[in-house]
Amino acid sequence: HGGGERLCVRLPGVGVRREWDVAELRVLRDRITGGAVRHLPPREQLDVLKEFAGIAADASAPDSLAILAFLYMCLAISAKYGDVPSMDIAVWSELPTGAGLGSSAAYTVCLAAALLHACRAISCPLKDGEATARWTEEEMTLINSWAFQGERVIHGNPSGVDNAVGTWGGALRYQSGKITSLKRVPTLRILLTNTKVPRSTMVLVAGVKEKILKFPAIMNPVLDSIDAISQECQSVLEAMPTNPSPEYYPVLEELFDINQHHLNVIGVGHPSLDRLCRVTASHGLHSKLTGAGGGGCGITLLPPDATPLAVEAAKRDLCACGFECWETDIGAPGVTLHSSSSLNAEVLHALSES
Amino acid sequence: HGGGERLCVRLPGVGVRREWDVAELRVLRDRITGGAVRHLPPREQLDVLKEFAGIAADASAPDSLAILAFLYMCLAISAKYGDVPSMDIAVWSELPTGAGLGSSAAYTVCLAAALLHACRAISCPLKDGEATARWTEEEMTLINSWAFQGERVIHGNPSGVDNAVGTWGGALRYQSGKITSLKRVPTLRILLTNTKVPRSTMVLVAGVKEKILKFPAIMNPVLDSIDAISQECQSVLEAMPTNPSPEYYPVLEELFDINQHHLNVIGVGHPSLDRLCRVTASHGLHSKLTGAGGGGCGITLLPPDATPLAVEAAKRDLCACGFECWETDIGAPGVTLHSSSSLNAEVLHALSES
Repeated sequence: HGGGERLCVRLPGVGVRREWDVAELRVLRDRITGGAVRHLPPREQLDVLKEFAGIAADASAPDSLAILAFLYMCLAISAKYGDVPSMDIAVWSELPTGAGLGSSAAYTVCLAAALLHACRAISCPLKDGEATARWTEEEMTLINSWAFQGERVIHGNPSGVDNAVGTWGGALRYQSGKITSLKRVPTLRILLTNTKVPRSTMVLVAGVKEKILKFPAIMNPVLDSIDAISQECQSVLEAMPTNPSPEYYPVLEELFDINQHHLNVIGVGHPSLDRLCRVTASHGLHSKLTGAGGGGCGITLLPPDATPLAVEAAKRDLCACGFECWETDIGAPGVTLHSSSSLNAEVLHALSES
Repeated sequence: HGGGERLCVRLPGVGVRREWDVAELRVLRDRITGGAVRHLPPREQLDVLKEFAGIAADASAPDSLAILAFLYMCLAISAKYGDVPSMDIAVWSELPTGAGLGSSAAYTVCLAAALLHACRAISCPLKDGEATARWTEEEMTLINSWAFQGERVIHGNPSGVDNAVGTWGGALRYQSGKITSLKRVPTLRILLTNTKVPRSTMVLVAGVKEKILKFPAIMNPVLDSIDAISQECQSVLEAMPTNPSPEYYPVLEELFDINQHHLNVIGVGHPSLDRLCRVTASHGLHSKLTGAGGGGCGITLLPPDATPLAVEAAKRDLCACGFECWETDIGAPGVTLHSSSSLNAEVLHALSES
């Protein structure tokens, strides 16, 4: 290795710590890109990277895919915008992996921002004394497109909606491959519950396609109805004030319930998710699955008039099912640069783990 | 009363025993029909009958409606086809009332057949030595039309589908007010479960209409999907042999599940019906609500390879929920004339109760 420049990546959440010689990575980069980035990562490029990193050809564990996406993004971005950076990168996330919460997109969005920033393809938006800052629209578009490349490495054929939400935050509409931001999104309090039932988005998507082929006249109207629910939901959200009063919630709750039934019909439900819905319903709260379904997570809407007692009781009953849950908000901002001095002790501690 | 001819009706299931002087009924008949039957029972005719029988104007209890339908059918049929008969009529049914099983139609179909037979508007199809016999198509059409008049007295604006099934048996298709018989129906073993949760068809139908008006773009596709389920189900049933082997069942079970979700979406579900489905699912059996929903009954498909042990376990768990259930068949024959000598002891006993 010769003691030259080093690139080090640490992912404490998935137990990864890797270090490479920058000169070696330059050689690898030229080998896979031929000096120029190809926009789609073809299978051969990834095969070379897997061999380099000692990852099995059919590896699907989060740590292997995280290393692979890192190597691909790092080399492709450096090939286009500058040199392979000599730096330490640490990524830590509160999101569980493989639960349908888009943790891979959160990862690739942060990586894209960090690598583009290291290669000076985007600016440093932080001004002196500021705790946080966000990039310009144009820079976010660039971050998003590279995050999507990383998502492709991890998922094969992702929709691009997860990295878009990670980049822009708020709420987005995805239809026929087109992603548009919602004009205005209120902050909605939710309970996010992980059933811990493992699922595979790929298998679930294949199952839905099979059901549509088997019963087109039955399934296509359900997809139309789901689309109409999204449109109705968008109208309701855009009409809601930033801190909405309780009377805005019943219609959202009704849409949650209908959508949850439809998702069961198209075959992405799971008994654990039904149980989640039943448990929260017994406390007057409405839930639906989130992500690809088939297990993974559900969200429960917490209207402002839900009493803390009811919410605590629901959380207790969900935990008694072996589920894990967090109270959080939807409609939060997207990718953000934080000054090191603004990081809290928990984050600093997590990032310093090796 | 003068000791003349008497007409006596006994309905042991709803605790009714009434006896009238035939001469008095003749006067009543002429008063409401003016000597000729009007095809629709207008409100004033029913008001006169209620007053005569001492039934409150807003009565909705099964016994009151049963007496009212009897009087209306008896007088209207006798006005058209003959004299008011002097006879004893006893009606007993295994069906619970108000559970969405069409017990009122079963009642009016039998009454129509008995009254038309007493007035000689239809033949006696029983030949010497036969235990049971059925009427001709033409006679069944007449029975059905009068049963429908009785249903109108009881329900106001019924679809006519219950009396059609009661008359013709088997399975029927009902679409846009048109009723057609299925070509061929296999005998399907089912578990019929009464949740005993009371419901009102009228209130439920109003709720569905309201949901469609509130969310047309979401609800109309669901109705289209339900229609497609009926069509698919019809094709499957018509393709099934009379005693179908287990491989025909999974598609029916899938259609049951989808339909049950849709019925919840349009607002005719009930937690008790969800529970019923969950209990049977835990024994590998698929259920859906039947009738108008909102409580009432559910049916569970029993494939030929369902073990007696699983069926017994499901029944036991359903009873533990406070439900009542019976094993029965669908696809049975419609209105049938039985010779008195062929009636079993249980039926004879029930009919002799006063």
